[in-house]
Amino acid sequence: MHCLVMTNTDVELGSKVRLAVKQHGKEEEYEGAYIESPDKSFILIKIKNGYNIGFDKKDVLKLDVLEKPKQNEKEEEIAQDKKLPGIALIVTGGTIASKVDYKTGAVSPNPEISALLKNVPGLEKIARINAIEVPFLELSGNLGPEHWKKIAKKTQELLNKPENKGVVILHGTDTLHYTSAALSFMLKDLGKPVVLTYSQRSVDRGSTDAFLNLKCAFHVALSNMAEVMIVGHATTDDNYCYAILGSKVRKMHSSRRDTFKAINSEPLAKIYENGNIEKISECKKRNENEKTKLENDFEEKVAIIKAYPGASPEILEYYIKKGYKGIVIEGTGFGHVAVEGKNSWLPAVKEACKKMVVCMTTQCIFGRVDSKVYAYGRLLEKAGVLYSNMTSEACYVKIGCMLAQEKDLEKVKHLMQESIAHEFSDRIIE
Amino acid sequence: MHCLVMTNTDVELGSKVRLAVKQHGKEEEYEGAYIESPDKSFILIKIKNGYNIGFDKKDVLKLDVLEKPKQNEKEEEIAQDKKLPGIALIVTGGTIASKVDYKTGAVSPNPEISALLKNVPGLEKIARINAIEVPFLELSGNLGPEHWKKIAKKTQELLNKPENKGVVILHGTDTLHYTSAALSFMLKDLGKPVVLTYSQRSVDRGSTDAFLNLKCAFHVALSNMAEVMIVGHATTDDNYCYAILGSKVRKMHSSRRDTFKAINSEPLAKIYENGNIEKISECKKRNENEKTKLENDFEEKVAIIKAYPGASPEILEYYIKKGYKGIVIEGTGFGHVAVEGKNSWLPAVKEACKKMVVCMTTQCIFGRVDSKVYAYGRLLEKAGVLYSNMTSEACYVKIGCMLAQEKDLEKVKHLMQESIAHEFSDRIIE
Repeated sequence: MHCLVMTNTDVELGSKVRLAVKQHGKEEEYEGAYIESPDKSFILIKIKNGYNIGFDKKDVLKLDVLEKPKQNEKEEEIAQDKKLPGIALIVTGGTIASKVDYKTGAVSPNPEISALLKNVPGLEKIARINAIEVPFLELSGNLGPEHWKKIAKKTQELLNKPENKGVVILHGTDTLHYTSAALSFMLKDLGKPVVLTYSQRSVDRGSTDAFLNLKCAFHVALSNMAEVMIVGHATTDDNYCYAILGSKVRKMHSSRRDTFKAINSEPLAKIYENGNIEKISECKKRNENEKTKLENDFEEKVAIIKAYPGASPEILEYYIKKGYKGIVIEGTGFGHVAVEGKNSWLPAVKEACKKMVVCMTTQCIFGRVDSKVYAYGRLLEKAGVLYSNMTSEACYVKIGCMLAQEKDLEKVKHLMQESIAHEFSDRIIE
Repeated sequence: MHCLVMTNTDVELGSKVRLAVKQHGKEEEYEGAYIESPDKSFILIKIKNGYNIGFDKKDVLKLDVLEKPKQNEKEEEIAQDKKLPGIALIVTGGTIASKVDYKTGAVSPNPEISALLKNVPGLEKIARINAIEVPFLELSGNLGPEHWKKIAKKTQELLNKPENKGVVILHGTDTLHYTSAALSFMLKDLGKPVVLTYSQRSVDRGSTDAFLNLKCAFHVALSNMAEVMIVGHATTDDNYCYAILGSKVRKMHSSRRDTFKAINSEPLAKIYENGNIEKISECKKRNENEKTKLENDFEEKVAIIKAYPGASPEILEYYIKKGYKGIVIEGTGFGHVAVEGKNSWLPAVKEACKKMVVCMTTQCIFGRVDSKVYAYGRLLEKAGVLYSNMTSEACYVKIGCMLAQEKDLEKVKHLMQESIAHEFSDRIIE
């Protein structure tokens, strides 16, 4: 069959197709599985390496159907072993709990126990899944504080059920470290593990990280580490995972499987597929008598501003006018922004500090902020800026949580300087 | 002598003092050299590791003078070898060309040839310094585009003098990578090396990186690499430096000496103190017949916005209203920002793309942006967002330079997708 496609209904979803496409003035060929495009002016195919690519229909010169779609085999139910320790799953829509679905495009989240267990052979031997909760299904780049609140609430409910030894949360990678920070501040008195995991590559790709990440996440959920953690590939190989504190972690690569890095700290532990856990740093121990409390309010009038040469301080005036209550300035070096010249931030910072919480982090990402080394640090601190040795992401989340929990601005400033969820950088030897 | 200090004139600058200070409710002791504080309500001392710390006078309980200041020895003139190849120096005020001056605080830039040569024994055997230009002396966190323009102009003038084999620029570290990107776009048809160097630790500290960095910078200035480069420590040891392209580099640690990292690329070369240069990647070769051109205009109505969960798209409307001409959105993952829910950026992005250049980079820092993998990428690209595989810093600088060089917005968008100064990420094998 050979046709110029004018509508999406010409080709059966899941068919193997070859496209001739006009790209930058040249004709190029692509082969892959034809999948449904949410945008009808685009044709979407899933190429061999598992990625989807979309083409504007007007650029598609030719479409050949090479093979009709295979019929999906009927899902087999996999029995769960009732003697295993139990955990609960929360699925929020990452690639990890998904299988390829040509109807909804790319990978579609499939939160059924049997499909999940089938995807990851051996998982059913680690733990019994007591419950799967699906508060929403979203790409994590679309999430906001309202989603964190839902995840936090579900996590608290599941943690406080005696049959669950821990909770595993499946989540997209883009904003996973913001969510892990949010759970770190929203859940109090943890007595069991809260484990966020992910995959960078979908389960239909040979290089998927879903299998190792899920197994290691299950092991951590049964461990004695009672913290909010991200568990995922430690290296580019499939050898082991790290468990990293949710308040000190960052996505550091857009596609690598070992994308999450402990920032200014060490991971908590190395986790092997067979369940071996090698502790690296100390953390809170399991205590199943502790009842986890929830404080999931969030003040949304908080912003992150990145400093850069030529940045106008007027942006601060904008946020003051808009009634913002908190700002993270992601400064240069030890936490700097111009305090001299036509773009001096000092007057605007002074104003802002009277009306909101202003925290300084560093866009270097690694290393500490320090107000004492250079004159600008001293001037900014004197103006009321709080030098905050944590990631910009954790700082943002912390301000929003603290402002929601405490209405007195001075008390919030005090809380920002207290460790609530291990958010402060460790002293790293250079 | 023992006194409660009420004014700065009590103690002779440079004296070794011991302070008793009230810190977080406790009394703590500090020893160091008493230096002049720009803020008269503070006492500043330079402690043993070379850092300055400042204390609010009201927190200082006691000050003991332990030793009177040593008298500075007279500067010796060091003869320059006229047979050596010549270079030119531009000093903008970093720690690197400084010596301790108790009068002006911390370290004060001292741009005299003899002082510089004296600081770095062996430097006088590498190259003859034909000229030292000091367009301004500033901490680099205070710099803006007006400073880049001055450096670019001076660099062009010096490069085009036949007696100079290359130009070495001494600069603070905070915004050095912004300046290196600016020079990469502002200087055209380079035929000689332009080398930016720095030190993270001042020359009075045992761990100073100034000596190795300066020597390696001189070697690179005489090499056949005709690019804008940052030269500095490659590792935490004093073993060798990297030369990294000015358009693909970033300060990645607030205090480590090997803070500058090649981003999504390899360094150009390893440089050893003895002048050995090991090439790592290809670059433009020296051609002294090329006359360097200058295009140092910059459109300042450009901003960097960091995306985060809960970020309100109103910030885009603000910049539209303010007449901005360019925006870098530092997105999550492959270059994402919410396109669903109450904080969807899609409508505002569509508006912005009609009036300005909107580029997408990734806050992961490492890895590429890609509009094709997820639905939001396709929607944002369709709205007019340019997916820009370069650092946010280089992207910001490039937009400002291109908007100044070309008034037609569509042509600027076209230029943003063309390689001007090697700014696009290399294809890195993961």
